[in-house]
Amino acid sequence: MNPIREECEALDQRDPLAFARARFTLPDGVIYLDGNSLGALPVATPARLQAAVTGEWGHGLIRSWNTAGWIDAPRRVGARIASLIGAAPDEVASTDSTSINLFKLASAAVRLRPGRRVILSEPGNFPTDLYMLQGLVDQLGGAVELKTFPREAIAGALDEDVAVLILTHVHYKSGEMFNMAGLTAKAHAVGALMIWDLSHSAGAIPVDLNDANVDFAVGCGYKYLNGGPGAPAFVFAAKRHHPEMRQPLSGWFGHAAPFDFVDQFAPAPGIDRMQCGTPSILALAALEAGLETFDGLSMSDLRAKSIRLSELFRSLVENRLHGQFSLGSPRDPGLRGSQISLIHPHGYEIMAALIEAGVIGDFRAPDHLRFGFTPLYLRYVDVFDAVQRLSDIMEDERWREPRFAVRSAVT
Amino acid sequence: MNPIREECEALDQRDPLAFARARFTLPDGVIYLDGNSLGALPVATPARLQAAVTGEWGHGLIRSWNTAGWIDAPRRVGARIASLIGAAPDEVASTDSTSINLFKLASAAVRLRPGRRVILSEPGNFPTDLYMLQGLVDQLGGAVELKTFPREAIAGALDEDVAVLILTHVHYKSGEMFNMAGLTAKAHAVGALMIWDLSHSAGAIPVDLNDANVDFAVGCGYKYLNGGPGAPAFVFAAKRHHPEMRQPLSGWFGHAAPFDFVDQFAPAPGIDRMQCGTPSILALAALEAGLETFDGLSMSDLRAKSIRLSELFRSLVENRLHGQFSLGSPRDPGLRGSQISLIHPHGYEIMAALIEAGVIGDFRAPDHLRFGFTPLYLRYVDVFDAVQRLSDIMEDERWREPRFAVRSAVT
Repeated sequence: MNPIREECEALDQRDPLAFARARFTLPDGVIYLDGNSLGALPVATPARLQAAVTGEWGHGLIRSWNTAGWIDAPRRVGARIASLIGAAPDEVASTDSTSINLFKLASAAVRLRPGRRVILSEPGNFPTDLYMLQGLVDQLGGAVELKTFPREAIAGALDEDVAVLILTHVHYKSGEMFNMAGLTAKAHAVGALMIWDLSHSAGAIPVDLNDANVDFAVGCGYKYLNGGPGAPAFVFAAKRHHPEMRQPLSGWFGHAAPFDFVDQFAPAPGIDRMQCGTPSILALAALEAGLETFDGLSMSDLRAKSIRLSELFRSLVENRLHGQFSLGSPRDPGLRGSQISLIHPHGYEIMAALIEAGVIGDFRAPDHLRFGFTPLYLRYVDVFDAVQRLSDIMEDERWREPRFAVRSAVT
Repeated sequence: MNPIREECEALDQRDPLAFARARFTLPDGVIYLDGNSLGALPVATPARLQAAVTGEWGHGLIRSWNTAGWIDAPRRVGARIASLIGAAPDEVASTDSTSINLFKLASAAVRLRPGRRVILSEPGNFPTDLYMLQGLVDQLGGAVELKTFPREAIAGALDEDVAVLILTHVHYKSGEMFNMAGLTAKAHAVGALMIWDLSHSAGAIPVDLNDANVDFAVGCGYKYLNGGPGAPAFVFAAKRHHPEMRQPLSGWFGHAAPFDFVDQFAPAPGIDRMQCGTPSILALAALEAGLETFDGLSMSDLRAKSIRLSELFRSLVENRLHGQFSLGSPRDPGLRGSQISLIHPHGYEIMAALIEAGVIGDFRAPDHLRFGFTPLYLRYVDVFDAVQRLSDIMEDERWREPRFAVRSAVT
């Protein structure tokens, strides 16, 4: 037995969060380092979905909008998410996709800052964020423009022409983390609004939106929140903006009285005006079960374990694979989220070989092998074994076999 | 035994579609006349969802985007819907909500008709359609306006200032049906585009979008398509518009190469550019199972049964409840969809009492009791029994009990 692996086993035995792994169903023989892309299946989810399907839908039928609380699901799930991100329960709704929610918020922000012409972001932000902003700018026909500056130049690009600054808190590829409170304050100093994309933060990092005085935020339900593939996203708006904020995707679930069936839109009070069409009740049920995996756990404890896991990974890679990869993430764990990227020109092939060997991470073009460390269900020994298998692959060079170069639809 | 009920039983015995009822799970003692609001649970859905949850998500994890065909789900489900509405398989995608999809199409249509200032619709259209158009007009800041005319005046309101005419094929409240081909031709005659909302048509009425030369359409997955509460909606665009159409909700799933992770949006070829964010795979799996309830059945056979069911209902109501309700739907079954509304000033209370008596329809403000006739799972004897229970309620006036006047969140 390897003495370092023995030490990892001892760490697992002492881990006060170890019990949470039993809240998940993980396939045998797999080390799952991709919870940052799709969270693992909670044990409770299948039964919760069956209850929603056979009981609420099958037996309750249309009555369940009232009797099973379907009508409140976006608010109820939103309130649960709020507790993870430092928001009040009535400041978050779970609805639509991250992309759609970002469009709503960016539209609302531009409208709250009339006369200002700039939406500010960074190049290399998660692409859908930039794509949605490009779609909005295009639709507004020149009234605003999207400007992007590298992260080190963003604070300097803030001026009184900026309506809103939109950034992803933890970078999807590098894991690099912005200073949320600091940048929000700098945006406010020039009168701009601040939107944070928390897709790689919510459920992974302690976030306190109201402490940081954030205006708006969006985030993803299917990564660290364990809501299932394509789970509903969430949208946060600080209460001070509720009375004035307006967004163009003004569907009937955002109406003050949707069942009055009147012809004229009137926005619901509060966060509900960020809803749009009829929400997917089954998808919300799965997300609700996913959120229950956080019951009784504190984000600061989870963060502490996440750092220990990723630091173990980093040190094992640096010691055992010296010089074969460069680090695509900040070396200081305080500056990164719950993930680490390794850079290699043949990253695609190496990751394909690693997945075949039972270690699931993912690849982000052009050369990032990405590894997520989800403290809810990962053990220290998993990290050790993952690096061991990566070492084996580098040593026997099996990644050079042509089959590992075949590209999949999703990378 | 009532001789008319006996005749209904005989009709059921001779019904060549009777076997389809076994494809659904219906609660004992309930007559479900609300499939136009939420389709009943298909027998196959729970197992299909369990396979998606425990097999594809739980075991396959992130790999299922490739290995379980998740990435193709919006196209695959769209192609199945296409077969019900007279579209080519690559002209339909299942994604987002009806509201969101209408915003995409209205935006695209306005853009395809530069210089034209009018979006035309009718007052009393399903409210979310009007709300979304109001949101779009508002966002475009005066470049276009929404004009509504009563349905009999719509053709006369078409002129060369109209960019797009947007109508719901079967009215949500009255069931009244527009002449799709005729109005589409009239819109085209002035150079306008035509968008149909098929929410109360798809799966209920034979629709042939390409035969009618329709430009764009949206529709709902949770009514006659049996996809479950808040199921993904669908969007149709005629192939001739694919190269030029652009929509502002340009998320990564609408990108030509989403996994290249480049900063600049480039629309996917074909209908995929109508996708936006990551789709809910669980919700799409349920919708896919719902669509399989149509396997081997023709829309014309279903329509024929639907007319027989609704005509039976109408005649029983007119004969047995003479003068107590007025008909809120066209008397000619060829002019209405698969539903009938009865009007009564105490419609809310009467419907509440009827639901308690096991006959589930719904209420639409201010005074419509709405009954849907889903030929896939309704029997003639169900229609008889429903009218019998309605007669009982009118005779003993139990609907006057105060508890039936208590308003629910969803009516």
